[in-house]
Amino acid sequence: MSVIHRFTKIEQGEMRWEDVSVRAYGPENSNADRATRQVLIGSDEHAPHFHMRYFAVQPGGHTSLDQHAHDHGVYVLHGRAQLRLDDTKHEVSTGDVIYISSNEVHQFFATGNEPFGFLCVVPANR
Amino acid sequence: MSVIHRFTKIEQGEMRWEDVSVRAYGPENSNADRATRQVLIGSDEHAPHFHMRYFAVQPGGHTSLDQHAHDHGVYVLHGRAQLRLDDTKHEVSTGDVIYISSNEVHQFFATGNEPFGFLCVVPANR
Repeated sequence: MSVIHRFTKIEQGEMRWEDVSVRAYGPENSNADRATRQVLIGSDEHAPHFHMRYFAVQPGGHTSLDQHAHDHGVYVLHGRAQLRLDDTKHEVSTGDVIYISSNEVHQFFATGNEPFGFLCVVPANR
Repeated sequence: MSVIHRFTKIEQGEMRWEDVSVRAYGPENSNADRATRQVLIGSDEHAPHFHMRYFAVQPGGHTSLDQHAHDHGVYVLHGRAQLRLDDTKHEVSTGDVIYISSNEVHQFFATGNEPFGFLCVVPANR
């Protein structure tokens, strides 16, 4: 069945949607480096092929240093970050699209004064 | 290999990215109902699991009336639309997330005064 999650508000610079739980993300983050995760399309929506999540990272925070077999499709919704891709560094900001291929080392560091927020699409089976 | 498509500008109310072609979309649309499609993550990026596209529909225009086996993940980037889902109608606007499940009849009608733009995620094999 189709599902609509309505955007409701901005809270501490992070986006919120109706009927979507906000979860802490990244156990290695201290409180000062707080990051959150919201599953917008996932197993609750019975999506068999892909999932869509929203991550928000407070200024100075970062995502986990990751390397895995599945790929990512990223769309930057707000803020700025430095992206590590293997041994290269890239500055990304609102509106940029990033395809992170299988097995590439990746990590986002929120830069600037507002939270860094992005959509992240992954295969459902991973 | 990973790819970054940088957001470059707004043109006639539609978003544009570096190294991404803008294509006409929807042969049933007249010029007055112009709509465009840009593949942000697709076969050029060798994405094996999912693709991400951006569609923009000028005020008064609409997307194709579709029904197919693959599902869609939609994120509304700008503007407003009336969404037909089977026999129901829904108003959607910036920030809303829509999961359109397999075989559900769907069509977006751009309402309001600015173009309606959205990300649309689909399985790579469809």
